Amino acid sequence: MTINRICKTAIVAVPLLLGVVASGFAQEAVAQPEVNTAVTEGMSDLRVAIDTIWVLVAAMLVFWMNAGFAMVESGFCQAKNCVNILAKNFIVFSIATLSFWAVGWGLMFGDGNLFCGLQGILFASGADNSPALGADYAAMNPFSTATYEGVYSAINWTPVPLWAKFFFQLAFAATAATIVSGAVAERIKFGSFLIFSLFLVGLVYPVSGHWIWGGGILAGAPGSGITAFFHSFRDFAGSTVVHSVGGWAALTGALILGPRVQKFRPNGTVRPVMGHNMSSAALGVLILWLGWFGFNPGSTMSAGDGSAIAHVLVNTNIAAVTGTIAAAVTAWLLLKKPDLSMILNGCLAGLVAVTAPCAFVTPASAAVIGLIAGVIVVFGVLMFDRLRIDDPVGALSVHLLNGIWGTLAVGVFYDAAVAESVAGLATGLTRGAQFVQQFKGVVLVALFTLVLSAAVWYLLKALIGIRVSRDEELQGLDVGEHGNEAYPDFQGFLTK
Amino acid sequence: MTINRICKTAIVAVPLLLGVVASGFAQEAVAQPEVNTAVTEGMSDLRVAIDTIWVLVAAMLVFWMNAGFAMVESGFCQAKNCVNILAKNFIVFSIATLSFWAVGWGLMFGDGNLFCGLQGILFASGADNSPALGADYAAMNPFSTATYEGVYSAINWTPVPLWAKFFFQLAFAATAATIVSGAVAERIKFGSFLIFSLFLVGLVYPVSGHWIWGGGILAGAPGSGITAFFHSFRDFAGSTVVHSVGGWAALTGALILGPRVQKFRPNGTVRPVMGHNMSSAALGVLILWLGWFGFNPGSTMSAGDGSAIAHVLVNTNIAAVTGTIAAAVTAWLLLKKPDLSMILNGCLAGLVAVTAPCAFVTPASAAVIGLIAGVIVVFGVLMFDRLRIDDPVGALSVHLLNGIWGTLAVGVFYDAAVAESVAGLATGLTRGAQFVQQFKGVVLVALFTLVLSAAVWYLLKALIGIRVSRDEELQGLDVGEHGNEAYPDFQGFLTK
Amino acid sequence: MTINRICKTAIVAVPLLLGVVASGFAQEAVAQPEVNTAVTEGMSDLRVAIDTIWVLVAAMLVFWMNAGFAMVESGFCQAKNCVNILAKNFIVFSIATLSFWAVGWGLMFGDGNLFCGLQGILFASGADNSPALGADYAAMNPFSTATYEGVYSAINWTPVPLWAKFFFQLAFAATAATIVSGAVAERIKFGSFLIFSLFLVGLVYPVSGHWIWGGGILAGAPGSGITAFFHSFRDFAGSTVVHSVGGWAALTGALILGPRVQKFRPNGTVRPVMGHNMSSAALGVLILWLGWFGFNPGSTMSAGDGSAIAHVLVNTNIAAVTGTIAAAVTAWLLLKKPDLSMILNGCLAGLVAVTAPCAFVTPASAAVIGLIAGVIVVFGVLMFDRLRIDDPVGALSVHLLNGIWGTLAVGVFYDAAVAESVAGLATGLTRGAQFVQQFKGVVLVALFTLVLSAAVWYLLKALIGIRVSRDEELQGLDVGEHGNEAYPDFQGFLTK
Repeated sequence: MTINRICKTAIVAVPLLLGVVASGFAQEAVAQPEVNTAVTEGMSDLRVAIDTIWVLVAAMLVFWMNAGFAMVESGFCQAKNCVNILAKNFIVFSIATLSFWAVGWGLMFGDGNLFCGLQGILFASGADNSPALGADYAAMNPFSTATYEGVYSAINWTPVPLWAKFFFQLAFAATAATIVSGAVAERIKFGSFLIFSLFLVGLVYPVSGHWIWGGGILAGAPGSGITAFFHSFRDFAGSTVVHSVGGWAALTGALILGPRVQKFRPNGTVRPVMGHNMSSAALGVLILWLGWFGFNPGSTMSAGDGSAIAHVLVNTNIAAVTGTIAAAVTAWLLLKKPDLSMILNGCLAGLVAVTAPCAFVTPASAAVIGLIAGVIVVFGVLMFDRLRIDDPVGALSVHLLNGIWGTLAVGVFYDAAVAESVAGLATGLTRGAQFVQQFKGVVLVALFTLVLSAAVWYLLKALIGIRVSRDEELQGLDVGEHGNEAYPDFQGFLTK
Repeated sequence: MTINRICKTAIVAVPLLLGVVASGFAQEAVAQPEVNTAVTEGMSDLRVAIDTIWVLVAAMLVFWMNAGFAMVESGFCQAKNCVNILAKNFIVFSIATLSFWAVGWGLMFGDGNLFCGLQGILFASGADNSPALGADYAAMNPFSTATYEGVYSAINWTPVPLWAKFFFQLAFAATAATIVSGAVAERIKFGSFLIFSLFLVGLVYPVSGHWIWGGGILAGAPGSGITAFFHSFRDFAGSTVVHSVGGWAALTGALILGPRVQKFRPNGTVRPVMGHNMSSAALGVLILWLGWFGFNPGSTMSAGDGSAIAHVLVNTNIAAVTGTIAAAVTAWLLLKKPDLSMILNGCLAGLVAVTAPCAFVTPASAAVIGLIAGVIVVFGVLMFDRLRIDDPVGALSVHLLNGIWGTLAVGVFYDAAVAESVAGLATGLTRGAQFVQQFKGVVLVALFTLVLSAAVWYLLKALIGIRVSRDEELQGLDVGEHGNEAYPDFQGFLTK
Repeated sequence: MTINRICKTAIVAVPLLLGVVASGFAQEAVAQPEVNTAVTEGMSDLRVAIDTIWVLVAAMLVFWMNAGFAMVESGFCQAKNCVNILAKNFIVFSIATLSFWAVGWGLMFGDGNLFCGLQGILFASGADNSPALGADYAAMNPFSTATYEGVYSAINWTPVPLWAKFFFQLAFAATAATIVSGAVAERIKFGSFLIFSLFLVGLVYPVSGHWIWGGGILAGAPGSGITAFFHSFRDFAGSTVVHSVGGWAALTGALILGPRVQKFRPNGTVRPVMGHNMSSAALGVLILWLGWFGFNPGSTMSAGDGSAIAHVLVNTNIAAVTGTIAAAVTAWLLLKKPDLSMILNGCLAGLVAVTAPCAFVTPASAAVIGLIAGVIVVFGVLMFDRLRIDDPVGALSVHLLNGIWGTLAVGVFYDAAVAESVAGLATGLTRGAQFVQQFKGVVLVALFTLVLSAAVWYLLKALIGIRVSRDEELQGLDVGEHGNEAYPDFQGFLTK
């Protein structure tokens, strides 16, 4: 069953376990008084209460990232497409909720095989006595007397009720779909985007997520057969599970849709399309930065080890900071001026990159990881332009490139002491060996997501079309898709 | 004293009580060791700490809804009235604070009679030894040794300090006034709105609130006399207490003010007035959605039962989701395109509707409740237009119609098992009988709010006037009422 | 060591201590059973968990104030400078993080002398076994058996891990720099502002902060020598530590930069420059209001005393409310109309003013403090215009004047009973004597900040220049400094 231990599981287990063992020794030394069962029940209730509040507050922060994505993506696009982007980003959480509730949760966390969950698939309705803990994780709530019984055993390491687990994971799943929205902006049909999101959150995301967080092929202990090859992959809060999966899906979308009309001139030059509202964009990134304090530290899914939570939070913040500054400096050197959109994307790049390694590295390493992310994002934006891949908001440079970078960075900066004390479980691999496992995981998830996403995009293209007409694109999708204008009282903004 | 038990009170009481009883049996079976009083005090302190943090964080989320209302309402109005709407929505929390502090809190929660509170009215200054619990609710903090003594016994079921209770309830009270702001927008005098809000939050809201949450006429156990007729009304987080009360007050305002100049043409057709800033509107609804995770789950006012909180949260989210999608589909079918303002109002409709039933129904029922809410809101907007009642932001369709629908939905979807385990207290009524009690409550609150609101509006109209001049309305209230423009650097937006 | 006790330290100590003492008496009366060490460890872990969650959530709220400042300041400026202000406010948190991590934290909280910290300066890397508590503060976690050992003993009174303390304090430090941003807006060079922020957060802020919260000269018990003169200064959450320090730095910047071109006409009249986006400004103040619920109540840095937290929160809210209303009424009387920017600044004024006294005064006093703050801010704005000191967003009136007023208000409204029960430690001084100590502190911090800030500004002026060219200023700093426009799709906004 070791394969069922995902990388998050042990975050508090080991220290608590050590504590209990220590107190066990103490009990040998000095005869310990009996404990009143009302006290143990009270302690267990308090443990569940504080953990549930933390998980739900963190989940709310991740939910709040929807507002961040909506503001960033709409701000970085043109005014004539603003309503469309807002509508996509708004409704995608609804699509994701239905899809993840209907099958996604079960495919990801249901007991099953190395590929996907097989039990309790429909509407999260499988047997489950959460907040009872799995036998291996009893130390997460030392005073609980119940043992987990149910079909979602891959996530039985956190002492919170089922619906709290579900909502936290749902907020993550929805993020993946939101990433796609930016890269396909200003030309995709509203309905086709919604159907794609349904597939992404209901099928692609949970299956690859199962491999890493659900007891599947990637994160288990080394075994025989296929698990002698794939094992020990670590992604604390989702650089790969969420961001590069969203990024690969976005890449296929951007490629299959093709660039916006007029973006790439016949003579090979690029026509810059400026974001219409930098106030929205800056607010959006600040919202995302705040939300990430739920995303990464909340991935402890327990308040049991405050030091671990604070370590993850400080790492998250430091990478955001060095990403911001690195992108500002790189843009200043390269473009002669500190472009605000580069500064903003630099922050997001640092956040994406630190998401996988935040519980395995020191703050100094987090600073370096963010720094490199900030450089990557600037060159990434220029590269995708040169490749004539049209990504209106820079989503590929932020989420795909830095999702990959962050996942690999686990291997580069892996610190056994931090992994022990913060993530609670070391793989025992050298940095080089860890890097290799990270790399294998990146490739496997890439192939799977690319193939499935492409299949869905092509299917949609054949059946209902995925791109609006040239006329509608030039006029703006707001009127064409929604019959709305974002700012009808202001003159002139549709004339470009 | 059973009349004092409001629907929220028992949310954690029953499960905890059962636990204590169970441990009582255990004590009979096995002799239990004595407990050190330092341990019991420590346990009690931890209980109060975690509950207070949860209530205050939830209250902050409800406070944050002010920003949501400000963005939604200003976004849905014209640019020339934007400053006015922002000013109204901003200052209304200040008015509400003074009014609820001065008398509202006491009228709502002070010990009194079936109609209103009579003790501790002024400035929340009555005797109160919170976080001590009422004798009936000792199980909410099993290790506390104090018993509640004070004059706010209707809210002595939550183990948090007085000021925490006050601030949480204040945030709710202010919401009611904010709802009015939208329906009377673009034509009301600034000063008259403020005075009306003072009355609404200080008088109307707390009295009808007393009936439901303060030990008054509506929510008690069936008794003799009038309480043989009114009883067992259930409104977990305020579909009626907050939303339909705000909605009725808004309706009287919209009717007495009359429609905006030019809204309804002499030939009977409606002139559509588009919102000036859909970025604001979308952000606002996302803020409100987030805030609702404080509004509904926070209405447990205790972290004691994490499963209950998570259940309420998931119900809240699912209704928001189905409301969003139902409104999108309805608008798509009816108006040929998925209008963003309908999508946004669909989400709010689902949230309003699930507010009363969220602790009494299954997630599947919550999905249906939201679905119906999303359909209601689209038809509601069209209906109020046809009735020539001018509601610039759709507040009546969202808060009034769905406040009513949600309150009645408690009867339609009431699930005894959920009510027992989540809300902790079943009424023991059949769904039909529960529906009847809900209906009576809706009518009683409607009559009271309509009469009092109309009286205040007419009084204000007679004394100082409630409507700006035709010239000021055409020019915009920003210059007329405030001497400001919202966007002075942009050309053209005042010419419409 | 009494000098090391800063005003915040005792917030929960005294009540808990009394509780423990009481239970000690109980133990004498009735023989108390022994306690199992697993129980005491579990209790201690729960204490740390809930306190850490509270401190981190509060820190996130303070972090979120960055978004508030970005929206307020950009909204109050002209569209042509919007990108520049957003960029400044965005990147300043990154600068602050690096600076406070590198040296600021150590200078402020490291063990040292009356002037500054001397140990553990670099990268917060000194020895520290937090969450262990200092010996004097054992009552903050009665079940912990560890005692603090490390070099940050001035902040060993809160039972949370080091990185949690660090991040909470970092969020405060960054606020000081953000305040400067507003007053120097629309004319300062981007690079010079960043370098100034580096000095402010790395040097000026932590040293004066050390005097008050780090065991330095101002807040200790009366002693001999210099501490016979300076002592007993109280600033609960930073009216002086954060706001007036930021305000003095802003004042020197505004003076040394000089006013914007065209702001003051040769004939002596003032050319009003209106904010370009009142939606942003209003949203920003609502964000700040929310953030202040982390700033002030979070300054307890422990969830141990829920009543204290709720008291501080209610005081904070009431002062915001009376500040809002007082500014609205003052503007209505003085300017004939309730100007929205005055209403918004009135709210901030109340919040700044109540920051120092919120744990030492009654809610009624908080109401008066806010009321006076709201009047001060309106007259302040007019006064600075008359003095020809150009402050585009009103930062001096809000943060400097009301930072001073709030600090002095501690003396005016000091309530010994509240100070005992909420802040946990009374100074024992009369109101008059307390006022004198507050006044001395205000003057000392003013002199220090003025001299150091002026030195840095003049140095920057000499070395790289601090002001953009007249042409760039007239054209707007967005194009000049960043090569961006905030709203490129909208016509006309650059023509003014």
